[in-house]
Amino acid sequence: GQALNIALLPGDGIGPEVMDVAEAVLDLLIQRYQLPLGHTRFDWPSHAWHQSHGQMMPSDGVAQLREFDAMLLGALGDPGPLEDSSRFVLSDSVSLAPLLALRKQLDLWACERPARWLPGAPQYLADPRAREVDMLVIRENSEGEYSGQGGRLAPGTAQEVATQVEVFTARATERLIRHAFRRARQRSTQREVPRQFKNDKHAQVCLITKRNAQPFWGDLYTDTFHRIAAEFPDVDIHHELVDAACMKFVQCPWRFDVVVASNLHGDILTDLAAVLCGGPGLAPSANLNPDEPSLPALFEPVHGSAPDIAGQNLADPRATLMSLAMLLDNLAHHHPAIGSAAQHLHDLIQADLAREANGEAFSGTRETGQRLCQWLAA
Amino acid sequence: GQALNIALLPGDGIGPEVMDVAEAVLDLLIQRYQLPLGHTRFDWPSHAWHQSHGQMMPSDGVAQLREFDAMLLGALGDPGPLEDSSRFVLSDSVSLAPLLALRKQLDLWACERPARWLPGAPQYLADPRAREVDMLVIRENSEGEYSGQGGRLAPGTAQEVATQVEVFTARATERLIRHAFRRARQRSTQREVPRQFKNDKHAQVCLITKRNAQPFWGDLYTDTFHRIAAEFPDVDIHHELVDAACMKFVQCPWRFDVVVASNLHGDILTDLAAVLCGGPGLAPSANLNPDEPSLPALFEPVHGSAPDIAGQNLADPRATLMSLAMLLDNLAHHHPAIGSAAQHLHDLIQADLAREANGEAFSGTRETGQRLCQWLAA
Ligand SMILES: CC(C)[C@H](C(=O)O)[C@@H](O)C(=O)O
Ligand SMILES: CC(C)[C@H](C(=O)O)[C@@H](O)C(=O)O
Repeated sequence: GQALNIALLPGDGIGPEVMDVAEAVLDLLIQRYQLPLGHTRFDWPSHAWHQSHGQMMPSDGVAQLREFDAMLLGALGDPGPLEDSSRFVLSDSVSLAPLLALRKQLDLWACERPARWLPGAPQYLADPRAREVDMLVIRENSEGEYSGQGGRLAPGTAQEVATQVEVFTARATERLIRHAFRRARQRSTQREVPRQFKNDKHAQVCLITKRNAQPFWGDLYTDTFHRIAAEFPDVDIHHELVDAACMKFVQCPWRFDVVVASNLHGDILTDLAAVLCGGPGLAPSANLNPDEPSLPALFEPVHGSAPDIAGQNLADPRATLMSLAMLLDNLAHHHPAIGSAAQHLHDLIQADLAREANGEAFSGTRETGQRLCQWLAA
Repeated sequence: GQALNIALLPGDGIGPEVMDVAEAVLDLLIQRYQLPLGHTRFDWPSHAWHQSHGQMMPSDGVAQLREFDAMLLGALGDPGPLEDSSRFVLSDSVSLAPLLALRKQLDLWACERPARWLPGAPQYLADPRAREVDMLVIRENSEGEYSGQGGRLAPGTAQEVATQVEVFTARATERLIRHAFRRARQRSTQREVPRQFKNDKHAQVCLITKRNAQPFWGDLYTDTFHRIAAEFPDVDIHHELVDAACMKFVQCPWRFDVVVASNLHGDILTDLAAVLCGGPGLAPSANLNPDEPSLPALFEPVHGSAPDIAGQNLADPRATLMSLAMLLDNLAHHHPAIGSAAQHLHDLIQADLAREANGEAFSGTRETGQRLCQWLAA
């Protein structure tokens, strides 16, 4: 078959460092498994590009990327040091625009963020059952609170009124929720051991809304959820208000299986889920279009560009490597060797993390990469 | 002086049970400290009222309550059991309308939710420093994501578009943020031991937005925050995106002092803060208008009506008692004995909770009330 092409987008801050590791690992996987894969690294979207071109990426950037089979992103954004948030290089809405543009213009409407705690990962929760966290948060990625509609009337005056319009469509809601049910069913068939849910079904979807205070789309989500649930009698259903869900993520995260949420709620819940699994340095994600497998999916760590630690060899590259493993999984239907490489990478990441279960500290961005490469070359 | 009047609003679900405890404790405090306080208990707003009157409260309900000096609310809402979310008695937006109506119509624009971990409270976080959690989340209570604007176009069809309009004004933003700075300053003067912040100032305000994805009000909040911060050079400032803030609430909650957030972000963060302090059964709150001390403030536990455990003597009444203590604190400027009673109540709650630090289990709604009453009568 024809070679598949992967676009590597390092971005800003710690992005290039973690991408260096991912690129080296990818090269060794290609070699070892004879993968029909090529890759191209781009220096945009990024601040550096902005500095010389006045924009974050070329005007035909999205069109160029559309030709690839998958994309791996490091991180975007540079909000300046936390202590001095006035020192903005670029406003975050400018520096992050390419990320939202890629998600929206390529119609990557489903964002999947699996959250599994792996041995060796930091444990922020006291309850030992929290080690059994194994959920998949599916986030709406194309509309809702991120519709970008609204504005500022009389900005900077005492009379200012700012609006942000949340726009939700039946079409996007329905495809999102149906995808969540399909994933829950799929996960249940892949699971060897039954989950410890209160309920007795093997698969569960939890819908998140804030319908008691935001009834308009809350009702659209709820109605759609119940209608689609009827097509999946084998899947348990559950509803949580977003505030209560945050509480339960801390109190009993092992109870959740698939969680489906709007753009903003999903953003919040996935950051919370990431920390339950040891922090953003261990949380991968995929932005994809389940209806159009020919569109390149975008894989990225959940973490941001962390400018405060950039260039210091402190960033954990494993979230990016986990995202790379998801990327390979996603391309595995093209060639069985890609699936084997993905599995190998998953195993290596777990083995590397397990060292830390035995008390070893995280050894640095480059050292982590070198160790994995040694194992792969062995 | 004239007697002050407190409206007791038990509401639904576990509301009446926890209110019974609060009422008994209040009576004993009035007696023991000769407090110039009277109280009236209302059977609205509630479902029971709805069943016989077709509405959650009388049309002049808000006007009646305006005549009081303070209000204590148990809980509102009855979404039916979690497992069967289709069995709605009333849609939650109807059953909760009175709560939002009280906040908005009485212009109780500031919602204050202190979060302190107290010995004996459940500890969900593994890090022992989490016992030092001591923050105050100040939530916007009058507009923003809860403006109630929007609707459903072509509801129930494949063409449906639902909108929810977030509306933010400079006026509400400015008063909110200034209030947060004042509170931070006030807390720092009341604090005996300096906080363990990274920064060296004694007081800190952290602003929450999602300005990278929701720039319109994000910019209004950020601009206003920086302008007002200049009036408070003694207070450190900090900004977090709401998703990152949720993560940090789990990773390092002891770093936060005053946190100021929009209506929805505040809703989410206060539920999270509540669980860090042992759960919603230990989280009090106040809805107030700092500019108009003559308007009655509304005190309520952060928890909901929890219909699944109603009538089973399982609800922890201490969040309501803590809210009552806040209510008394708030009226203390009228009479010094009210302040003494508030302090006594704070101490009793802590003493009661401390029993659980020694391994005793929570002993039931009524038993907790009886024990506190015995201590008070002693
Ligand atoms: C950077 C930001 C716009 C983005 C989002 O909110 O979607 C990020 O937080 C994420 O979760 O991918
Ligand atoms: C019941 C609901 C409308 C309410 C809110 O979101 O404000 C509650 O969650 C709260 O935090 O007081």
